[in-house]
Amino acid sequence: MGKVLVRAFGVSVDGFGAGPEQSLENPLGVGGTQLHGWAFQTRTFRTMFGQDGGSTGVDDAYATRSFENLGAWILGRNMFGPVRGAWPDDSWKGWWGTNPPYHVPVFVLTHHARPSIEMEGGTVFHFVTDGIRAALERAKAAACDKDIRIGGGPATIRQYLQAGLIDEMHLAVAPTLLGSGEPFFDALDLVKLGFTVAEQTPTELALHVVLRRAES
Amino acid sequence: MGKVLVRAFGVSVDGFGAGPEQSLENPLGVGGTQLHGWAFQTRTFRTMFGQDGGSTGVDDAYATRSFENLGAWILGRNMFGPVRGAWPDDSWKGWWGTNPPYHVPVFVLTHHARPSIEMEGGTVFHFVTDGIRAALERAKAAACDKDIRIGGGPATIRQYLQAGLIDEMHLAVAPTLLGSGEPFFDALDLVKLGFTVAEQTPTELALHVVLRRAES
Repeated sequence: MGKVLVRAFGVSVDGFGAGPEQSLENPLGVGGTQLHGWAFQTRTFRTMFGQDGGSTGVDDAYATRSFENLGAWILGRNMFGPVRGAWPDDSWKGWWGTNPPYHVPVFVLTHHARPSIEMEGGTVFHFVTDGIRAALERAKAAACDKDIRIGGGPATIRQYLQAGLIDEMHLAVAPTLLGSGEPFFDALDLVKLGFTVAEQTPTELALHVVLRRAES
Repeated sequence: MGKVLVRAFGVSVDGFGAGPEQSLENPLGVGGTQLHGWAFQTRTFRTMFGQDGGSTGVDDAYATRSFENLGAWILGRNMFGPVRGAWPDDSWKGWWGTNPPYHVPVFVLTHHARPSIEMEGGTVFHFVTDGIRAALERAKAAACDKDIRIGGGPATIRQYLQAGLIDEMHLAVAPTLLGSGEPFFDALDLVKLGFTVAEQTPTELALHVVLRRAES
């Protein structure tokens, strides 16, 4: 049976999981790219974006692992795009171009139904309107025995955490301040939810911590 | 003119600056000592507690620096001790024994007046009942041109931050979860307050970041 994972999720020192004012220009909110500095310079991410080179050390190992053994993803509506409310049309197909980096079924949480979209490279976006548990059931069925990654954003991950549905979470604490945006840890008692620090590895660009639920 | 500093202030990955339920047995709250693992093993701290040995690398450099050029300290009432409300008598003289590690005047914020206490080694505890600005004025007068360190706890540091009175802050993010306790970053916009990351150094035991106010 696959696990439900959060991988490569960047948070600032002051606890923000995304910047404020997400928009077409700032998919991660203003300043949000600072959270992912460690990832952008890895060979794994550079290759994904069609670039040469990149680091091959600890940061890259975490980047590679973040895509391993995944059978399905779940994304919040805001991670899928900047459009809010009802879909004006079917033109928005995510931030990632014609061949998104998922290559498996991706379940997008939304209040507004929409037909599935088949992209190049194996990614299919499905739109789920009946809540986080329904999305997880569909993701499990699609993933067979592989893992399911909750991609984000912060609000979506928090919902799954609070429902006790996440088994393991890799956070990368970036040595940066955001000041405002989406506070990730607000009113979240990770100890009470059963998490302990299973791994911790500092690099020049991030403090990597893997949190695992005791019963997992 | 001296600066107003926070030094060697430990926070957990999930943003807590102290554990819950501070008491005589748990001066830093339940689990709070986890925040200071990096410091306890340094030569600087071990020497302070009369022990041999200890690390001499980056963690120790930050530990040493945390005591340099200080002319006065300011502590919140809860950092001074577990007694709440009116002082029952004058018997409580801090957590630190007869010769506390300050060796300069220490101004303790409280709502309950009490005569100053002269300890061994140069530490004098003064009790200030007229607020954080009054305490800072008295500390500045006492420190001459040296720096003033706001020792904690989290609530006291947050008050000075929100009043725009802190110039520089060294935080040590410990690779640990507390789950509950005193959330340090709650409703605190450090970017708006003018802080940027001036230094960042990861070690095996902490992610050290020095935050500095632009105008400082």
